[in-house]
Amino acid sequence: MDNNNVWRKDFPILDQKVNDEDLVYLDNAATTQKPKDVMSKVANFYYSDYANVHRGVHTLAERSTEQFEAAREKVRKFINANSDKEVIFTKGATNSLNLVAQSYGEENIHEGDEIVISYMEHHSNLIPWQQLALRKKATLKYIELTDDGQLDMDDAQRKITDKTKIVSIAQSSNVLGVINPVKELAQIAHSHDAVMVVDGAQSVPNMPVDVTDLDCDFFAFSGHKMMAETGIGVLYGKQELLEQMPPVEFGGEMIEFVKKFDSSWNELPWKFEAGTPNIAGAISLGYAIDYLESVGLDNIQKNTQAIVDHVLPKLLDIDDLEVYGPKDPANHTGVISFNLKGLHPHDLATGLDMEGVAVRAGHHCAQPLMEYLGLSATARASFYLYNTISDADRLVEAIKATKEFFKNGTV
Amino acid sequence: MDNNNVWRKDFPILDQKVNDEDLVYLDNAATTQKPKDVMSKVANFYYSDYANVHRGVHTLAERSTEQFEAAREKVRKFINANSDKEVIFTKGATNSLNLVAQSYGEENIHEGDEIVISYMEHHSNLIPWQQLALRKKATLKYIELTDDGQLDMDDAQRKITDKTKIVSIAQSSNVLGVINPVKELAQIAHSHDAVMVVDGAQSVPNMPVDVTDLDCDFFAFSGHKMMAETGIGVLYGKQELLEQMPPVEFGGEMIEFVKKFDSSWNELPWKFEAGTPNIAGAISLGYAIDYLESVGLDNIQKNTQAIVDHVLPKLLDIDDLEVYGPKDPANHTGVISFNLKGLHPHDLATGLDMEGVAVRAGHHCAQPLMEYLGLSATARASFYLYNTISDADRLVEAIKATKEFFKNGTV
Repeated sequence: MDNNNVWRKDFPILDQKVNDEDLVYLDNAATTQKPKDVMSKVANFYYSDYANVHRGVHTLAERSTEQFEAAREKVRKFINANSDKEVIFTKGATNSLNLVAQSYGEENIHEGDEIVISYMEHHSNLIPWQQLALRKKATLKYIELTDDGQLDMDDAQRKITDKTKIVSIAQSSNVLGVINPVKELAQIAHSHDAVMVVDGAQSVPNMPVDVTDLDCDFFAFSGHKMMAETGIGVLYGKQELLEQMPPVEFGGEMIEFVKKFDSSWNELPWKFEAGTPNIAGAISLGYAIDYLESVGLDNIQKNTQAIVDHVLPKLLDIDDLEVYGPKDPANHTGVISFNLKGLHPHDLATGLDMEGVAVRAGHHCAQPLMEYLGLSATARASFYLYNTISDADRLVEAIKATKEFFKNGTV
Repeated sequence: MDNNNVWRKDFPILDQKVNDEDLVYLDNAATTQKPKDVMSKVANFYYSDYANVHRGVHTLAERSTEQFEAAREKVRKFINANSDKEVIFTKGATNSLNLVAQSYGEENIHEGDEIVISYMEHHSNLIPWQQLALRKKATLKYIELTDDGQLDMDDAQRKITDKTKIVSIAQSSNVLGVINPVKELAQIAHSHDAVMVVDGAQSVPNMPVDVTDLDCDFFAFSGHKMMAETGIGVLYGKQELLEQMPPVEFGGEMIEFVKKFDSSWNELPWKFEAGTPNIAGAISLGYAIDYLESVGLDNIQKNTQAIVDHVLPKLLDIDDLEVYGPKDPANHTGVISFNLKGLHPHDLATGLDMEGVAVRAGHHCAQPLMEYLGLSATARASFYLYNTISDADRLVEAIKATKEFFKNGTV
């Protein structure tokens, strides 16, 4: 273990053996581990204050409501939204993006309209638009990538036109390890009267995000990728847009008046939160934000950058290892995808797991990107604040050991 | 505390003072408290095995996937579904019912078709059908209630006709404390080739449910009302129906192949589970089911029935207290709604809270029922397995004390 990492002690799950080796968890782009402090605060909520929210006048219901809405305010502040009305709790980033497609998209996309995404989008920021385009006889357009996996901004300028109604782009890729200039994209989109949707699932955990500065119209992310519990996410939307949008789900919480044959809706943000919300999930997200702020997003970035600076050249040095995305560590996030020639990435990941190193292998919910790159799959290591230089060295050693193991061609 | 209740010790939250009085938690129809054993097993999962599910080949991902799918199998067995393919994890009962309306309803309801619900439905089992009917120019019909708040089965026979495509009814009311004969309703629905949807949010926590015996087509419930964490629910659906239904949300997990301009879907149940699921929520539901089975649903029913037998006559004896639903304790579940003449139910609930007794007040997400009953709101006490006869006595005493307090007419 690297004694320079002061946060690692907050994650007891990391102190275990996997296949007789010390665990190195490098699957953070899929989901992150939870700090014990967040876990114990959520447990304390369940043990002291738990009840259903909003609809109760008794003491526990009031305490729960207060903590639930305090979590919303923490989220608002964290992403610098203007109002709590703009912070909608969802099941996760996927749910958030589907909400935009089903509500804003369903109302505003018509035959012949264009929706612009990119080749690097995760399925969650691709299929909702693809299916919306199919339903509406609209056109889905893909922004091309440069040779080192960056978004081709010249192509973005060409693809976004006056026919464009929605531009939806990931702020940070879950495969290529790049950050996309979503602020600039929002300006281009707005110059054509299109709305800008940002998939922030991979960015919010890793860098400061200011939705007001980005001037995006919608912004989606998940709690479980930023140290909160599973089953909670956020949709940020500009208030004037959310006000005009119809709700997607109906039930408790989201209504004003329900008559036999028609109903009217609650004010924001509850209009979009039908049913009992994931109360403890939202509260865990609030505590996760407290934790991330106590660490400091700048420190998270520094830790990851130090690891990438160290490991990317070493990976590029391994014969027969192809590494995707930018070759310059300064342009690469903590998500690194690679393939070992002659070996299926699943076998590579299994080999790494034998060495105690947890990485993901597959299409990473980005099949069109895989096709675009001429690949069926990749292995992917992704680093987070509890990872260390020695974790990165373990990855390099494990890849070399796996390469050696398979050298005689077992595939 | 009642020493006869052996389960109460599993709920440390109950051992606290509220407004200087021992807490009596009677808001179980809104949400139940969590057994410490369920909480610690979920914490243990986060501390030992947590990773994202399905898409990983490393050890933690495999352990997480195994536990997540084992939870699904526990649910299947608990409600006696035929296959794990029929058990879809959702955000909660509201999400489940909306899924049926958006997928099955959107495909199968046409102009002139009829959807039959009842006057006692929760908004979550009312507005999705109301809005579907509006979108499709279909007709929404309400089954009447008898004088003591039971479903009028003669009217059900009249309202369900060959024009009916969907019948959707709560198995147990969240206001009136009655159980509806959903098995018989399913037979009537099927005799007219309509599908039967059951809102089981209030029934599954309290009585044995066998979806195969009920022969319902869809069945929805929430984890948080049955001792699991928040943000998890279930939609059961018959496999042959689910197979034909389109997905509602798009993203990871739910796909087979994603091409640039079209996609195909994963097999059941994952087709309906877009994005990272509420992994720990599902696992907590599995542990909650273990707990409920260790207690025994028959014992839960016996405990509640003993309380209702004891308290209902006492409530009916209080002058100026109107109690809704059946007057015979044998026909009354652990949900008891009431109003004190001259006092707004919010004031009544606030008064009870001053005595340490937590009840809910409001329209209970059932505004059309309130209108039907000529009420604006009620107070509601709801009992669960950790409640005791002495809790019930505390309720009676607190109502009397509140009545005394407000006697001089502060309202």
